[in-house]
Amino acid sequence: MNLFGRIFRISIFGESHGECVGITIDGCPAGLSLSPEDLLPDLERRKGGQGKGITPRKEDDYPIFKSGVFNGKTTGFPITILFENNNTRSEDYDKQRSIPRPGHADWVAHQKFGGNEDYRGGGHFSARLTTGIVAAGAIAKKIMNGVSIKAEVTEIGGEKDLEKGLQKAIDAKDSVGGIVECRVNGLPVGLGEPYFDSVESVLAHLVFAIPAVRGIEFGTGFAAAKMFGSEHNDAIENPQGKTRTNHAGGVVGGISNGNELIFRLAVKPTSSTPKEQNSLNWDTGKTEDFSIKGRHDLCVALRAPVIVEAVTAIVLADFMLLEQKIKRVF
Amino acid sequence: MNLFGRIFRISIFGESHGECVGITIDGCPAGLSLSPEDLLPDLERRKGGQGKGITPRKEDDYPIFKSGVFNGKTTGFPITILFENNNTRSEDYDKQRSIPRPGHADWVAHQKFGGNEDYRGGGHFSARLTTGIVAAGAIAKKIMNGVSIKAEVTEIGGEKDLEKGLQKAIDAKDSVGGIVECRVNGLPVGLGEPYFDSVESVLAHLVFAIPAVRGIEFGTGFAAAKMFGSEHNDAIENPQGKTRTNHAGGVVGGISNGNELIFRLAVKPTSSTPKEQNSLNWDTGKTEDFSIKGRHDLCVALRAPVIVEAVTAIVLADFMLLEQKIKRVF
Amino acid sequence: MNLFGRIFRISIFGESHGECVGITIDGCPAGLSLSPEDLLPDLERRKGGQGKGITPRKEDDYPIFKSGVFNGKTTGFPITILFENNNTRSEDYDKQRSIPRPGHADWVAHQKFGGNEDYRGGGHFSARLTTGIVAAGAIAKKIMNGVSIKAEVTEIGGEKDLEKGLQKAIDAKDSVGGIVECRVNGLPVGLGEPYFDSVESVLAHLVFAIPAVRGIEFGTGFAAAKMFGSEHNDAIENPQGKTRTNHAGGVVGGISNGNELIFRLAVKPTSSTPKEQNSLNWDTGKTEDFSIKGRHDLCVALRAPVIVEAVTAIVLADFMLLEQKIKRVF
Amino acid sequence: MNLFGRIFRISIFGESHGECVGITIDGCPAGLSLSPEDLLPDLERRKGGQGKGITPRKEDDYPIFKSGVFNGKTTGFPITILFENNNTRSEDYDKQRSIPRPGHADWVAHQKFGGNEDYRGGGHFSARLTTGIVAAGAIAKKIMNGVSIKAEVTEIGGEKDLEKGLQKAIDAKDSVGGIVECRVNGLPVGLGEPYFDSVESVLAHLVFAIPAVRGIEFGTGFAAAKMFGSEHNDAIENPQGKTRTNHAGGVVGGISNGNELIFRLAVKPTSSTPKEQNSLNWDTGKTEDFSIKGRHDLCVALRAPVIVEAVTAIVLADFMLLEQKIKRVF
Repeated sequence: MNLFGRIFRISIFGESHGECVGITIDGCPAGLSLSPEDLLPDLERRKGGQGKGITPRKEDDYPIFKSGVFNGKTTGFPITILFENNNTRSEDYDKQRSIPRPGHADWVAHQKFGGNEDYRGGGHFSARLTTGIVAAGAIAKKIMNGVSIKAEVTEIGGEKDLEKGLQKAIDAKDSVGGIVECRVNGLPVGLGEPYFDSVESVLAHLVFAIPAVRGIEFGTGFAAAKMFGSEHNDAIENPQGKTRTNHAGGVVGGISNGNELIFRLAVKPTSSTPKEQNSLNWDTGKTEDFSIKGRHDLCVALRAPVIVEAVTAIVLADFMLLEQKIKRVF
Repeated sequence: MNLFGRIFRISIFGESHGECVGITIDGCPAGLSLSPEDLLPDLERRKGGQGKGITPRKEDDYPIFKSGVFNGKTTGFPITILFENNNTRSEDYDKQRSIPRPGHADWVAHQKFGGNEDYRGGGHFSARLTTGIVAAGAIAKKIMNGVSIKAEVTEIGGEKDLEKGLQKAIDAKDSVGGIVECRVNGLPVGLGEPYFDSVESVLAHLVFAIPAVRGIEFGTGFAAAKMFGSEHNDAIENPQGKTRTNHAGGVVGGISNGNELIFRLAVKPTSSTPKEQNSLNWDTGKTEDFSIKGRHDLCVALRAPVIVEAVTAIVLADFMLLEQKIKRVF
Repeated sequence: MNLFGRIFRISIFGESHGECVGITIDGCPAGLSLSPEDLLPDLERRKGGQGKGITPRKEDDYPIFKSGVFNGKTTGFPITILFENNNTRSEDYDKQRSIPRPGHADWVAHQKFGGNEDYRGGGHFSARLTTGIVAAGAIAKKIMNGVSIKAEVTEIGGEKDLEKGLQKAIDAKDSVGGIVECRVNGLPVGLGEPYFDSVESVLAHLVFAIPAVRGIEFGTGFAAAKMFGSEHNDAIENPQGKTRTNHAGGVVGGISNGNELIFRLAVKPTSSTPKEQNSLNWDTGKTEDFSIKGRHDLCVALRAPVIVEAVTAIVLADFMLLEQKIKRVF
Repeated sequence: MNLFGRIFRISIFGESHGECVGITIDGCPAGLSLSPEDLLPDLERRKGGQGKGITPRKEDDYPIFKSGVFNGKTTGFPITILFENNNTRSEDYDKQRSIPRPGHADWVAHQKFGGNEDYRGGGHFSARLTTGIVAAGAIAKKIMNGVSIKAEVTEIGGEKDLEKGLQKAIDAKDSVGGIVECRVNGLPVGLGEPYFDSVESVLAHLVFAIPAVRGIEFGTGFAAAKMFGSEHNDAIENPQGKTRTNHAGGVVGGISNGNELIFRLAVKPTSSTPKEQNSLNWDTGKTEDFSIKGRHDLCVALRAPVIVEAVTAIVLADFMLLEQKIKRVF
């Protein structure tokens, strides 16, 4: 199901090389002023495009509002936003068709959907679907007054010096992975629940919806497994719940505690690498060497921060609506 | 909401020191032979109890079936299972009440529920609620023919030699964290979807419902962030989808690919440590030194494997029902 | 799925002649004072028992709270309530087993669940499951300050004089149907939405969950099909939305308009009638005459009002929580 | 929430006088051959247009597929379909703005959404949103092999002679209501459940999503309230579950029994009537006489059958997928 959320609900549709990709946002409060321009800064960040290591494919990525906005304000009804696909080179993919690309969904999609999948550019699996998610994230950010969400790449190819990590990939004519960290400030106390609707559970759910994410950790994360309890526990310092340390990363018992929410995620190297690979040819039933044509990022982690911010905003806005920390009408 | 799942749905209830904890499993196929005895081995593993580093509290943890089983078989209707609480020492917690325990949910629960929470033994936040989850997991395992799920602790306090890691904690009179790894074999190809219902998304959601989990990674996980694409990509070797390496950990594009599903999670050290701590006293509004009474595990990771297996089984059984890989009536 | 609701969620379990029936209510605000005694008046109404035309089976129907209430108040966590079954005569049903009772679910249950259903007393199909629903309804009523919900039987066997309608059935040694009307006052404007979550949609959904209901109509209902638009339209009289007439029954465009909410439902005659019937014998594959043993109501409509009030309260409380008309903590 | 369904899920968006209306269908099996032409016959029926009593507004209503179909077949991913609005006369509505139209959602929408609603032509409340529902219904019909769904108007303005009923309205210069009946044949035994997911519950839910529906009854319906049990019970005649009579209308205990599924619904007269009315003027705070401009149906019941068939098909296809009576891939 291509749906997520309880009050602030998003559903995505579209294929990489079809007519468009898009999103419907249902449950956004009425009365929020909203125009395509509000979404452009985040959409621009998602595109990347100018820097090293980013694919040269450039869509206009201009959001076309089809519903839910009237006289410059949200109506409280579903907001459907389309992004046209007008810069596609499908022939690259047709040639590639007989070899399911390693690291991509070609093989599983073919098995699961009986050969009916739109294989061009990854179809519905394509990271192009994150365009809509970024748009929804920008809207979610707008309704969360006083909450700041910032994600950034902190490591590329094992290097904290990002330029250096990227150069490694360029030198190796290969793609490379990275680490993204996200920090949220200004969050109210009391979002989330123990067990199934913990903040970590719902955030992790949506973070793993981002293509190429392979791991997530909150606060001290995996390092906590090496610590003693007396080290890891965050002493509460005052009646407002401020803690001396923040190993928990802002969530205790599944509930936000008012301290900074921090999590990190691991992004695998782009599966499409310029390097020659060896894999199965479906037609012959044998493995062979091949190389992938088409335009691809050297490091998808570079585009991830704005998407990570978007899913974080979507999840937290939903929690805030559920907990009545945001009104249904502005 | 204390509910999880789409077809095979679980909902939990109860408090650590209330009358009972329990679970309702809705959507289990009819005609499965089922008795309390089927659940005892996994419930026994959850209790631990005999080994080093496990709390001496021993409930009988005998599952009392209240509905959904007739003549030794499931009926297709909700299965409600209760576990009575008959070995509680609430007075330990009443004394502790004025100091919200660091690492525990005391402070957030108080804020969120306006002081109405059952604070005894953590109330609904208690890991005792996992009893029901383990029971549901045992049922989920029974309906997945040919699928094997095995989780184990692979590291304690940073040590691969578990005995040694535990001894460190004993020597330090402290609690300690650990790493749990889970491997699933025999899974059909085609479970999961790209984006919101990816296998990683849904699994991570339920894994983070387990108290004390701070991170999760699939396949090569965080290490993937340091790799080149040509290293990380798993070459497909044959038409059945067998891959040469398994960096993906059995999931590509959110969909199971028939290779071994592998993930690891980080478990923080038990928050209740024998060591003296310093934290806020609600009554005085100032911090003070205190130590926690009561019976607690030195390393909660030791109890985690059977719970991790349970949530994995629950998620995968649900996917298999959804994908019609398990029938609605046995 | 035995689950209903978005914020105020109920799930039911149990069988008529099993150990118990029960309900879990999740999402009830914290801090509501609640004791078994609060539920007894409505539970007593559901039992009926003293009047004409009600089955003599009397359970104590005392609600046993298993979770979610602490120190006399709701905690905000799931409230599980059990009702023990201690007055069952299963042997009546075993004898009946070879003839699927007309009007009952015996035949469909057998087909759908492959013979694994608990057939005793209708099992999970039994109206005894409404005990939990009535308990949840009583809680829902408690959280809706200033909203009054009243249902009553307005017709039995086609007679407005209820005594007379019942006597007809007694004279004919048969069971008989009836009409129930429900009126809600004090409802805020703005509950519900056009299309899928209209007040009528959600109410009808839960009303048809009540066994034996065969139809529902809002406001003028079926009679509206015979009217002209100028007659049926309710002129708005003042800025508060008061309408001159109330043909709409308090809902326009799926949304409550602040006028009295009115709906009526048709209840079929009890399927278990003292009269001899003719139907299939599974063992012989032929039809034969038989008569039903056991204790049954002559007119189930008589018990329906409190159940109708309960489902109405559950639906409206859920809408009010969703629309932030009720707070999450009292 | 503008979402309905569990496996076969629909979500609608758009406004009457905005750019478009549309629908997303998620969960449709892959491999179904599908083209816009498959939807045209039902879309044509919805438009009406040629006959007496139907509004002269004619959209092309040509379905524009934006996603989910590739090489003429469904891919298993969301199918988004748009219908452009190109024949709107919004100025009619602007003039009307100060008087909330009786029977319409103008007043409740204004209250609920704080004046942010798109009031033109009813905005999201408009029956134009049913265009998408009819499209989804046509797809649902295609995946249900061997199931036939037929709805028809059986009564207009209290007359079985439909021509006569319509003439009454024309003579009175007024609008008029009607009755629609729907019959489904070829349905498998075993769809639905007792209680919350009964066939009646889910069908009634979606039927009341159709604008102007005021009541629904299954089988003998309201007339059952006047019957004796021995009359209403449907004797089972053979091991296949064929019943002698069909008062139940094909559903017993919430579950389809293999006999014809029958239900009827009441449609109120079109709220927009050519007749002069009296209602509140928001600007003056007083009531006044006015008449509604714009193009409207004399009897909306005439357009209802294809919409009723659509919601029936959507609900039943969803049940069939859930019960594994339809495969996930064709």
